[in-house]
This record gives sequence, structure tokens and C-alpha cells, in this order.
Amino acid sequence: MVDFDDMKEMFKYWTKKYMFPIALVIFQCVFIVLYAVHADYGFEHDNNSYVTTSNSPPPEGDVDFYYPYFQDVHVMMFIGFGFLMTFLRRYSFSSVSFNFLVAAFVLEWAILIRGYVFDWNSTAKTFVVDVKSLLHADFVCASVLISFGAVLGKTNPAQLVIMALIEVVIQVWNEYIGLTYFCTYDGGESIYVHVFGAYFGLAASYSLQRKRVVESEKESSSYASDIFSMIGTLFLFCFWPSFNAGAAYGEGRTRAIVNTYVSISASVVLTFVVSAFVGKGKEEIIHIQNATLAGGVAVGTVSDKEIGLFGAMIIGSVAGTISTLGYKYLLESLKKIQIHDTCGVHNLHGLPGVLSGLAGIVLASMPWRSLYQENLTDQCLGGGLNRSVRVHAGYQCAGLVLTLGMSIVGGLLTGIFLRLPIFASPDNDSYFDDSLNWHVPKDFVAEDSALGSLIKNILPGQMRLDETPLEPTNNPNTIEVI
Amino acid sequence: MVDFDDMKEMFKYWTKKYMFPIALVIFQCVFIVLYAVHADYGFEHDNNSYVTTSNSPPPEGDVDFYYPYFQDVHVMMFIGFGFLMTFLRRYSFSSVSFNFLVAAFVLEWAILIRGYVFDWNSTAKTFVVDVKSLLHADFVCASVLISFGAVLGKTNPAQLVIMALIEVVIQVWNEYIGLTYFCTYDGGESIYVHVFGAYFGLAASYSLQRKRVVESEKESSSYASDIFSMIGTLFLFCFWPSFNAGAAYGEGRTRAIVNTYVSISASVVLTFVVSAFVGKGKEEIIHIQNATLAGGVAVGTVSDKEIGLFGAMIIGSVAGTISTLGYKYLLESLKKIQIHDTCGVHNLHGLPGVLSGLAGIVLASMPWRSLYQENLTDQCLGGGLNRSVRVHAGYQCAGLVLTLGMSIVGGLLTGIFLRLPIFASPDNDSYFDDSLNWHVPKDFVAEDSALGSLIKNILPGQMRLDETPLEPTNNPNTIEVI
Amino acid sequence: MVDFDDMKEMFKYWTKKYMFPIALVIFQCVFIVLYAVHADYGFEHDNNSYVTTSNSPPPEGDVDFYYPYFQDVHVMMFIGFGFLMTFLRRYSFSSVSFNFLVAAFVLEWAILIRGYVFDWNSTAKTFVVDVKSLLHADFVCASVLISFGAVLGKTNPAQLVIMALIEVVIQVWNEYIGLTYFCTYDGGESIYVHVFGAYFGLAASYSLQRKRVVESEKESSSYASDIFSMIGTLFLFCFWPSFNAGAAYGEGRTRAIVNTYVSISASVVLTFVVSAFVGKGKEEIIHIQNATLAGGVAVGTVSDKEIGLFGAMIIGSVAGTISTLGYKYLLESLKKIQIHDTCGVHNLHGLPGVLSGLAGIVLASMPWRSLYQENLTDQCLGGGLNRSVRVHAGYQCAGLVLTLGMSIVGGLLTGIFLRLPIFASPDNDSYFDDSLNWHVPKDFVAEDSALGSLIKNILPGQMRLDETPLEPTNNPNTIEVI
Repeated sequence: MVDFDDMKEMFKYWTKKYMFPIALVIFQCVFIVLYAVHADYGFEHDNNSYVTTSNSPPPEGDVDFYYPYFQDVHVMMFIGFGFLMTFLRRYSFSSVSFNFLVAAFVLEWAILIRGYVFDWNSTAKTFVVDVKSLLHADFVCASVLISFGAVLGKTNPAQLVIMALIEVVIQVWNEYIGLTYFCTYDGGESIYVHVFGAYFGLAASYSLQRKRVVESEKESSSYASDIFSMIGTLFLFCFWPSFNAGAAYGEGRTRAIVNTYVSISASVVLTFVVSAFVGKGKEEIIHIQNATLAGGVAVGTVSDKEIGLFGAMIIGSVAGTISTLGYKYLLESLKKIQIHDTCGVHNLHGLPGVLSGLAGIVLASMPWRSLYQENLTDQCLGGGLNRSVRVHAGYQCAGLVLTLGMSIVGGLLTGIFLRLPIFASPDNDSYFDDSLNWHVPKDFVAEDSALGSLIKNILPGQMRLDETPLEPTNNPNTIEVI
Repeated sequence: MVDFDDMKEMFKYWTKKYMFPIALVIFQCVFIVLYAVHADYGFEHDNNSYVTTSNSPPPEGDVDFYYPYFQDVHVMMFIGFGFLMTFLRRYSFSSVSFNFLVAAFVLEWAILIRGYVFDWNSTAKTFVVDVKSLLHADFVCASVLISFGAVLGKTNPAQLVIMALIEVVIQVWNEYIGLTYFCTYDGGESIYVHVFGAYFGLAASYSLQRKRVVESEKESSSYASDIFSMIGTLFLFCFWPSFNAGAAYGEGRTRAIVNTYVSISASVVLTFVVSAFVGKGKEEIIHIQNATLAGGVAVGTVSDKEIGLFGAMIIGSVAGTISTLGYKYLLESLKKIQIHDTCGVHNLHGLPGVLSGLAGIVLASMPWRSLYQENLTDQCLGGGLNRSVRVHAGYQCAGLVLTLGMSIVGGLLTGIFLRLPIFASPDNDSYFDDSLNWHVPKDFVAEDSALGSLIKNILPGQMRLDETPLEPTNNPNTIEVI
Repeated sequence: MVDFDDMKEMFKYWTKKYMFPIALVIFQCVFIVLYAVHADYGFEHDNNSYVTTSNSPPPEGDVDFYYPYFQDVHVMMFIGFGFLMTFLRRYSFSSVSFNFLVAAFVLEWAILIRGYVFDWNSTAKTFVVDVKSLLHADFVCASVLISFGAVLGKTNPAQLVIMALIEVVIQVWNEYIGLTYFCTYDGGESIYVHVFGAYFGLAASYSLQRKRVVESEKESSSYASDIFSMIGTLFLFCFWPSFNAGAAYGEGRTRAIVNTYVSISASVVLTFVVSAFVGKGKEEIIHIQNATLAGGVAVGTVSDKEIGLFGAMIIGSVAGTISTLGYKYLLESLKKIQIHDTCGVHNLHGLPGVLSGLAGIVLASMPWRSLYQENLTDQCLGGGLNRSVRVHAGYQCAGLVLTLGMSIVGGLLTGIFLRLPIFASPDNDSYFDDSLNWHVPKDFVAEDSALGSLIKNILPGQMRLDETPLEPTNNPNTIEVI
């Protein structure tokens, strides 16, 4: 006879152990069906006449217009975010790889959701997927990866995938409402992507971790992991102009590039300044890895506007300053109210994103700079194409508040959902540790034991070369440095 | 009197020791002469009237059309392949540097060979070198670098250069026959580049290693080397759409981008899925480094066709699955029949490439999707421009079979040739070891001795932090982690 | 009563300690004012009518023409130079981060200085900032980063910023005189950027270090830091064609791409050749990291000219050869005359740059190849638009000599200035050491003591695995390698 209890136990055990791949497979199958039914390349072509006439080699349309920007943003998502998060010395596999997985998963999903929400052709019952769609999917992706940064090291991959699944839907709806009805301009997506991603992640982190301790000596970097992280920083820095200019065109595109370039350079300089001041003359690498980029976020909302190069520079300088101060002082304070923010996304994306939103409100009062009428359609609330300056400033504010609200509520609920026992949330001992999810190489384990003990027990922090704690035993020769 | 025996010995000794640089110098000189005689920039210009009239600033022609794609593919060759292969913990210098050398050498050589075979202008006795030529040289390069992956760590640089020299010629001829006479379409070069490179490399590895043991504890990764390898993976991932779309134009270019993007994202997801299943809930980093990219290979042949986004997604999902399974199970099996495949190119390029070829055959039966008539010219065998659907499907198959045949036979013969004593093939003790070919830094040697002995002798694999194998001796203070 | 002496002391102490951030803040404020007063986006627009008329989506003008090249060059500055310099095992934070700071600072400053010198519109009292300006600011930046390579590890950040501030002004004036009055063509900026940067840096290093010892065992690489450095090398390699073609157009752009590609590939091959010869059959990683790129420098001045692909190949081969020989033999010789060149910029930028200048002179005598009349305006000395071939060759020479003169004198004076006590120049013990300027992670300190002593005292360089210097004590089991 079949033992149903055993089977149930076994089912439970297997579901827990393999929940992550099982969930992914199911989603993948659903996606394939949805793509089959609703996605289209978006050319006018007659499927029956397979003898196409000559394709003139230099293609027109949007591929050449969007592709270079898309590629830059693509590199930001996979290399930029991926390596930026490798700074944890025992969690680099997970950082770069789960970033990879989440990004790829989100791209598939975001194309679908944006297709249904933004691009649905109700006659043909399809939506078009072209290079512009891919670019926008990458923007959605940025939002999810920012949230990932807040919970980095404290979740398992199953939780990450579910979080991504939920977040994409809320992010896309929030942006749709903001752009279509509120008509809140946000050229570089600082509100819809950075603010949303940061506060969603912080809220999720809060409700996931509530009443749990996050106290791990593994939450630290090594010399090498900090350098790996700089790969991410520098690619994000280099390609940020493409992020902010990606959806712009005409003169707006040039302005977005120039403004972002100036603003992010300014935040680099101010980060070094503030880091030296608060570090008593010495720099902190964590500031350089992160706060340097705050100028890219903070200029986002107004990046394609007539803010003037000096305006971009002031915004970048302020952003670099508050971001560095945030890393120095706010990160610890937030921990006290049980908001643990592994990558400090609040300081890199949250605060600078809000700053960008505020800049957008201020700019709206200067219509010859904000050019806000370019962003209006007759669908806009508050007057359609004839919206007044004052009303538009109000809607810039409303867009920011809406985003804060949807991200915080969405994040809190998602975090609560992810605490369900079925997700088998990891506990403090397995935080920031690759061995939970990976078959790790020999030296990872070795370092845990031998070097770990060397570093922890034998060497006090201030010991220097000349003290030679381990006596040379069997070979006293010193070797020449080549 | 001159002692001829001594001179002969000395000559032998020198030839062996310096064979690699001597061979390179000779080839370089030959190349320079060939470039001088036959290569041309390809503009219409009158060399006598050196007062050129105004060059209108926005250039027309192909430079702007091909350059961004070329650059992406260029990064794939040098950063992508180069870093992907750094995973070996004692062979990273060689991996990234010999990849660099072989790629640069092949580019020079491939421009020549492709010039003679594809672009020879028999009137002017020249061939044109423009950005499109550079892009195609990069494609040839990919083929050689894939083969390099199969023999990685088991050859010396002289052998690599000779292998590259031979492989380029066979690859170009194979592609020429396939494209010109068989008219086998292969937009993303999955057959002509990936299948060819993989099976050439495997065959060369087989005949090089036959009856020799490859058994080295140095054939393993370290935590850092695995992260370096991810740099390669992620750049390959990001720029794969440019690889598959590089030679396409018109609507085909957009389709190639979108299809590749969707397919490779699908293979990322399925790789994580399958890796978790076969790893009992834990991922293997080698799968993430490699199998994630299988979707880019597998969609190649049909990437610019009307396969539908769901079609791309199915192909990518299948590719990610079989590639991961290949890494898990096939890699070891092949070793038993004396095919040692260091990077697992069979799983990343071989199997997904064959899958792509098969997809091409299947698609050929759906002419409204394959649009195969666009690929026909009156030079095509089997009916020229009027080739029927069924005949074309046959030639898709013929192209794949031809490629398998030429690569396997070519690889076998090349491997046998490289066993000649003059090449001084390294033996098992020097496999996967940089110190054979490099002046290595101090810590490389140190790790060999001290850390190596620590790791090998003192620490069993399962020891953890709390066991502290080395007793703290002179300083029992524990230090605070910042 | 106030103690003025105490206050003075305190002021001195604070100024020294915080000189770096204070100086940066002041410069940043000055820059903001200058941008506000003089910088403009460069569109014709009417600020009063904020209802802009329709922006036609496909933008014309220069953004799409320059942007891809600009992005490639941008990556070269931040990733390329940044990582190339991480080879020092104890100075990687500083290398990559100060490169980041200096580059961002120089970009802000160079836009201003080039605006005033090259693009000043004396009617509107403004200069235009567009994507082309950003690209040229990146070129200026290259010059400063090259100089940075010469003094790497021997200066503090305050000195770097002051050096950058001065160098930008001299570099821009030198280039202005060279291009406007001498009309010395220099497509890839080998004279104005590479020669200038290298000799400025060498001169500054000389006068900074005069009568001081640079003798540190920290001036060495580790296995990992050498691989990090290869990231820089490979990005510089891949994007060098964009550097040389960035300012070209028309057929010149294609020629610049093709010539650079061929030349730099040739220098890769010859570097491996020469490194093997001088290394007795083994390669040196420092040659591969640097000399491989010499072909990109050496072809620069003539890159957009009709030099023929064989010409490019010969130039690249010669450059790779002399650069490698320079690293092998010249680096040490220069130290003896008190020119310490940390990165060997003399070999990578100095010598190949001079070679490029010489190639430019030779080519000038072949007007059907040099097409020098395209570079003439009526402002040119020596005949304006009617300058003869012989006179032009003279001015090619004059441009090189001018650049050597201005860079050496400028560098010497700058170095002397930076010796002022207020700059608190570091001394030999703190050279090449991140802990001077950074809060470093635990393992950095640990390595200094434990591993450092292990490596220095216990292990002689030639010890190998089989000698096992540390006896296994408590666990003699050997572990299986997975």
C-alpha cells in the first residue's frame, strides 16, 4: 500500500529543495506561450508571399537609432550591476550570477508586461517587440536589480525570482500611470526606475528581515572583491549617458548626454572630497564604488531638459555629497530601525532619485527650461495639452509621491509574502555565503579554515610587515624581489 | 675546424626553444608582403591627384553601418573569449594572453585568406579591406578561439600558432563552399564558426592527446579565477546579438537582434534550472559561465529568419538544457574515449551549433519563415535561384555535414602534425601551468609551495571556520571585523 | 586671549591633511561659475518661446556621428587606463580610483579650457559643448592619464590634481599652436597626446623624485593584479581604432580604423616575439600588458592617411619591437639617471609616439599619401593653403619638437612646484601603498603581515610543490581535487 504521509513529506521536501528551478521552468513555459500568442516583430510583411523583394542594405527605422544605446544599457545591467555587487568577499558568485539570472528573467517578463500595458494593439491582438522594446525592458530590469541590491545576500534565488516577478508588474503599471495620466516627465527614469527600485527593495528588506538579526562577519569585502566591484562602477559610469539619453531624441538626446556626463563627473569629484573629509583624510572604497554614480541618478529626471551645464554640475555635486554622507552615516542608522540595505541602494538610488524628482518639480516652474509641453498629450490629467505651468509642477510632485507609495507598499507586501515558510528563507548563518547555493572551489573552503583562522586569530589589525608574526622556521633566506 | 655536430645540436636546441617567436616573425614578414601586394582600402581614388576635393563630413558607405557591430564582436573575441578561459587557477596568464596573441594573429591572416577566397578582384589583382572585412575576420577568429578552448592548457604557443594558421584556411574554404555553392544560410555563423571550431578543436585535442594522460590537479579553478571568467561570460552574453546580427541587414538585422536576445536570455534561465536539478539544489559556476550562452549559438543559423519570438525562446531553452547536461555528464564521458575538452567547447559550441544546424533544416521546410530565396544566387547548386524548398532543406543538411566533415578531418590531421617532435609538445606535468611559458610573479610560486601545501595537506575539504586547524600561537587576540 | 600661534599651527595641520578635498571643492566651485557664464549646448533655440515645434525623431547633426566613438574612448579612459594601472599588488585601489578621479576632474576642466582656446565665440561670449567636445575632452584626459602612469604610486592625490590642472592648460595650448599655426597633422593624437603626456610625466617624475630613492618591494605585481591589468590592456586594444578614428571623417575614418586595427595587431604579434627572445623562451606579462598596444600609438599621426595596410603593419611591428625592448632594457637605465617611470609610459607612449611623429615627417614627403593639403587653412604658417611639400615636412617636425619642448619644460616645472612642502609629498616607505590613502580591508593588512612574512622569509623563489616547506602537522590526509 502507498504511504500517503511519506509521499506528502517527500513532496514537501522536494518542493522546498527544488522550488527555485521548478518555479523557473513553469514561468518559462508560460512566457513561451504568451510570446507565441501575442508578440510580433513589428514589420509590415505578408506571411504568404515568401519571395520578399529586395531589402535595401542600409536599414531605416529604429534599429540603428536605438541599438548603440541599448547595448550600453545592456552592459550596465549585466556587467555594471553584476560586478558592482561582487564586493562581498564570500558572496561574489551569487552576486554576479543571480544578477545575471534575475536580469535575464526580468527581460523576458518585462517585454511581455510592457507589451500588454504600453504597446497593446487591440485590433491585431499583438504587441510589437523591437530594439526599443528591448531597451525599455532593460530599464525595468534596472529597477529590479536595484531592489536586489537592498536584499543582496539575505535571500535565496527562489525568493529573488518571485520578487522580480511581482516587482516588474508594479513598476510597469506605476510608470504607465505616471507617464500617461500624470505626464510626469522623467527622461532618465530616476523616478520610475531608481526611486521605485530603491524603495521597493528597502521595503522588501524591512519586511523580510523584521525581528531577525543581520550580523555576519561575512558581510565584508576583500581587497580583490573590492577591485572586482570597481569594474561594475566604471562601466556604469561610462555608459550612464546612454541610460539617460536612451529614450530621448532630437536636441533632447544631445542635452541628455552632455548633462549626464557633466553631472556624473561632478559627483565623482565630490565623492572623493566628502569621503576624504569624513574619513579623516583617507578615502573609503565603498564610497568610490557607489556614490560616484549618484550624479547620473540625480540628473535623470531633468537630463534632457534645458538645465544648463552649470545646472547639471550643481545637481551632480549635491548628489555626490549626500550619497557619500548617506553611506557614512545613514546606512548604520537605517539598520537600527531594521532596514538592512546591503549595497546601500538608498544612498545611491533612493536619495539621489528623490533629489532628481525634486529637481524636476523646481524645473517645472521654469517652462522655458522644462519644455514640459513636449511631454503632454490629450490623455494627460489636469488639462491635457493645455495644462498650466503650476498644474504641471503639481503633477511632477504627484508622480514622485505615487512612485514612493507604490514602491513602498508593493515592497512591504512582497517582503511579507516571501516570508512564507515555503520559501525557506535563509537565516543569519547562511547570509552572505556562497556555499549555501553553490558548489564552491577548494580555496573558498580552505580560506574559511586556514586563512580565516590566520586572519582572525593571529593577526591584529594594526600589525605590519616588520613584526613578522610567524617566525621563519626552516628557511631563513630572504628572497630578492625581481 | 668547425664541429658540425655541435652546430647541428645547437641549431636544434635553438629551434626548439625559439621556434615560437621565429615562426611568428616569418609569418609576419610574409603577411606584410602579401598586404603590400594585394590589399587595398577600397575607395575609388586617383593616387596622382593628391589634392582631394572636399570630403563631406557625414560619411556614407559601410563604416557607420558595420562599425558598432564590429566593435561589439571585437570585444567578444578579446575580452569575452579571453576572460572566459581564465577559469584555470594556474593558467590564467596563458589563457588571456595566448587568446590575445592567437586572435591578433588570426585577424591578420584571416583578412588575407578571406580576401583571396571571397573578395578577390581578378582585374585589379587586389582585394578590398574595409570595416566589413574586419568584422568577418573576427568571425573567423571566433572559430579558432573555440578550437583553442578545447586544447587549452595542453599545448605550447608554437602549436597554437600553427593550429591557427591551418584552421583559418580550412574554415574559410568550408564557409566559401557552404555559402557560395550549397547556399546554406547561417546568419549567426553557428555552422561555419561554432560547429566548425568546436569539432576541429575536439579532433585536434583527440589526436594530440592520444595515448597520453591528462590528469592534473592544476586543472581546477579558484574563487577569484572563476569570477574573472564571469567577465568573459557577461561580455559574450551582452554582445551576442551583435554577433548574430553583424552580417544581416534590413529587417533581418532587427530580427537577428531580437531573436538572439530572447534566445540567449532563455538559455540563461534554463541553465540555472538544470544546474540546480543536477546539482541537488546547488548551482555549478562552470555551467553559469558557459551553458548560459548556448542560446546565442543555437539560434545562430536561423537568427535573422521569421522564427517568431516564441521560436527563439524554445531554441534557447533547449540549448541551455542540453548544454548544462553536457557539462554535467558528457564532459567526463568524452574523456574516457580520450577526448579531453578543457573548456567544454563541445557543450557550448558543438552541441548547440548542431542544434542550430538542425533548426535550419527544419525551418527550410517553412519557406515563409526561412525566406531562403533571399540567400540564393545563380551560382547555387541544385537549381540556382529557382531551387525548390525540398532541395534547399537538403542543402542546409549538406552544409552541416560538410562542416562536420571538414572540421573533424582537418582537426585530426592538424593534431597529428602538431605531435611532430619539433613542436616539443608539453607533457602532463606542465599542463595547465603558467610557469612553463611565463616569468611568474612571486605569489604564484609561493602559492605553489606554502599555500599549496596548506591547502593540500592540512585542510580537508569539509573543514569549516570553527575548526581552526592552525592554532593561534603568539597572538591570541581576535580582531573586530569592521 | 586667542593664541595665534596655535591657530596657525592648527591651520597648517588642517590644510595639509585636507588640502586635497579643499582644493577640489574650490576648483569645482570655480568650474560651476565658468560653466554658468560661458558654456552653451549649441543649438539655435529661442529661450522665450518654450513651446518648441516638433522635434523630428531621427536627429541630425553630430550626436550619432560622434557618440559611438566617444563611448569607446570613454571606456578606454576609465576602464582601459584604470585597470591597466592596477598591476601594482598593494596599490590597486589607488590606481583605479585616482585614475577615475583625475579623469573626471580633467574632463570638466578640459571642456572649459578647450572651449576658451579652440571654440570661443567672441560675439556670443560662449563656447559650445556637444558630443564632439566630450570626445576631445577625453583626448586631453588621455594625456594626463599617461603622465599619471609615470608618477603612479609616488604622489598623493593633491599632487595629482594640481598636476592635472596645470597639464591640461599646457596640453591644450600646445595642440592649439600645433594644429592652427604649424598645421601638423596628427589624426590619432600621437604627438599632441601620447608624446606630450609621456614626456610631461617623465619630466615631472624626474623633478619630483630628484635625489630621492625609489626602492620598494611593494613595487611589484601579484598573479591577480596582473590579470586585473589585462582587463585594461584588452579594452585599450579593442577600442584603439575608435581613438584614432574619433576625429576623422569621410574616407579618413575608414582608413583610420583599418590602419589602426592592422597596426595594433602587428604590435601584439611582435611583442610576443620579442618578449620570448629576450626572456629566453618565456614571456613577461608586463610586455603583454603594455607593448602590445604600441602599434596603436605608433600609427596615430598617420592613421587616417594613405599609408597602405602594409605600411600600418610595418609601423605596428616596429612599435611592438621597440616598446618591448624598452620595457626590458630602457626602464632600468632610466632609473639610473633618476627617471623612475612606474608604468613604463616612455616605452608605451613616449617612444612609439616619437616613432609616429617621425612617420608623419617621412609621409609628408609623399603628398599623394599624406594628403596634407586637407589639413591646411589660410592661418597656417609657411604659406597657408599653398604650403609646399618640403615646408610641410618641416612643420611636421616642428610640431613634434614643440611638443617635446613644451611637455618637458612644463613637466619639469610642475614637478618642482609639487615638491613644495605644502603638498606633503609621500616618501619611499609609503610609495606604492594603498594604506596611505585608503581605509583598507582586513585582508590587505593581513597579507602585509602573515602572508608577507610567509612569502618573504619562508619561501625562496625557486621552491616548488614537491618540497612542501611547511610540514603538515595535524591532518596528513591529502584531499581529492574535484
